[in-house]
Amino acid sequence: MKSEREIIEKLKKAFPKGKAEIGIGDDAAVYQNLVFTTDLLVEDSHFKREHPPFYLGRKSVNVNLSDVAAMGGEPLFVLMSLSLPPDLTDKWLDELMDGVKDACEKGNCTLIGGDISRSEKIFISVTAIGQVEKPVLRGTGKEGEKIVLVGRVGDSRAGREVIEEGLHGFEELKMAFFDPIPKLKEGKIAASFATSMIDVSDGLVLDLRRMLGKKGAVLYPSSLEPSPYLEQYCEMKGKDPLEYMLYGGEDYALIFTTPESPPLGRIIGEVKGEGGIQLDSLILREIGFEHFS
Amino acid sequence: MKSEREIIEKLKKAFPKGKAEIGIGDDAAVYQNLVFTTDLLVEDSHFKREHPPFYLGRKSVNVNLSDVAAMGGEPLFVLMSLSLPPDLTDKWLDELMDGVKDACEKGNCTLIGGDISRSEKIFISVTAIGQVEKPVLRGTGKEGEKIVLVGRVGDSRAGREVIEEGLHGFEELKMAFFDPIPKLKEGKIAASFATSMIDVSDGLVLDLRRMLGKKGAVLYPSSLEPSPYLEQYCEMKGKDPLEYMLYGGEDYALIFTTPESPPLGRIIGEVKGEGGIQLDSLILREIGFEHFS
Repeated sequence: MKSEREIIEKLKKAFPKGKAEIGIGDDAAVYQNLVFTTDLLVEDSHFKREHPPFYLGRKSVNVNLSDVAAMGGEPLFVLMSLSLPPDLTDKWLDELMDGVKDACEKGNCTLIGGDISRSEKIFISVTAIGQVEKPVLRGTGKEGEKIVLVGRVGDSRAGREVIEEGLHGFEELKMAFFDPIPKLKEGKIAASFATSMIDVSDGLVLDLRRMLGKKGAVLYPSSLEPSPYLEQYCEMKGKDPLEYMLYGGEDYALIFTTPESPPLGRIIGEVKGEGGIQLDSLILREIGFEHFS
Repeated sequence: MKSEREIIEKLKKAFPKGKAEIGIGDDAAVYQNLVFTTDLLVEDSHFKREHPPFYLGRKSVNVNLSDVAAMGGEPLFVLMSLSLPPDLTDKWLDELMDGVKDACEKGNCTLIGGDISRSEKIFISVTAIGQVEKPVLRGTGKEGEKIVLVGRVGDSRAGREVIEEGLHGFEELKMAFFDPIPKLKEGKIAASFATSMIDVSDGLVLDLRRMLGKKGAVLYPSSLEPSPYLEQYCEMKGKDPLEYMLYGGEDYALIFTTPESPPLGRIIGEVKGEGGIQLDSLILREIGFEHFS
């Protein structure tokens, strides 16, 4: 079967955007002053059954709110499709929904609809609807503009490994995976000066590529500093933190381009040329975290 | 684990409707002039892997458009979350998406977003967004008003049995299950005189109950005529067509209440009292098709 990227490219061609201003292919679709996005979490692909359901509930909403943030929008509503094994306890479901409720409250939105079914594995699909004055798109950054990163990258991937290997400690890394926080305030602020924006869900380099469109970039090596937690983990495992930061996935940080000196985030590079994404003299391989490959 | 109904009741209490005019608990949520609804289809619960993917694609969209129809709305957009086994063929996926495209074109809407993941079983969750002038709700029908049915009930359940048993013939019944057609035009017409409306997805009696709210009803036995296909099937199997018509599920017919003589559909009863749903001297049991029970 085709890769996720190939499938999306194909669908983009098959489905005209209709009455929408923006259809398939950005963080969210845009219609009038509303944005629409959907993301799903599937057992054994995105999480394990034994993971804490409260954080799973939060994450299922927050990965969607992260897409709303990446448009410069504010959340309004979520809808949720749940498919659950009948042997899950009421306690598990209560905790999941407590997490959903908590994420909605913190994101200033509410659940307005859903559907429930039964299956062997857990499947959670959420659609978020937000409002936006002027959506910040992809592919619209210009030569020489600064590339700004808001949030940490790499920690979530390391956290996932820590959880999978059952290691003690590294709580900050575990929480980066279990409980990513959407950058709603930051996205809203950035919207007034960002020329393009995306949330980093599939790895910094891959999402940079999506944000840049046909443009290239130069990244500044000194700006890519790992968190102390990631540094400690990589030291212990004899691994390179840069690999995690560039290709990790599930970070839910924001990146944007701007001609101005940004009041938030960290400048990690600039838009340059039509070629690849360069770090030192290296052209980075443009791969990332794809569920389908 | 709790039943679907208990879970929804609980969520209705847990989630205030926020800025929405209508939140959890109708065919679709309402915000300004827009309606939002979501429905999912899960392998082995709603369909089998060997079922034709073109119709599965159509159905995944059309069951959502049926909810838009039941609000008296017109479809604008759909978003789709897909989780697929990696061993499915490209042909299977192409046919599925051809069905999605076909349903969108016939419904005058388009796919504006989605997400893809991988799993052992197939999950398809669709969210539909529609526009509506004046949404037709549930629980708002009045004493003495007519109850009108638009479309056939019972055929889909019989079709499902025909398919499961691998019987030859009965193509109309099979198609009622594989390829339900949302009553978009009819819902739009009914919106101008219906006082309450719902689509019949979980069985006529159960959805009547949902539409009636606290009111009761009397159904006219002579008005509940099976289709010739259902009649033939029941004759062969020695079964009662009325059971299929009252409790079948997945019909995607519309029912509505109105004080007027309706220009479409068939009058099957009237709103009466605060009690149960009565057929002849019988109070009908209010059960239906619930995926979680």
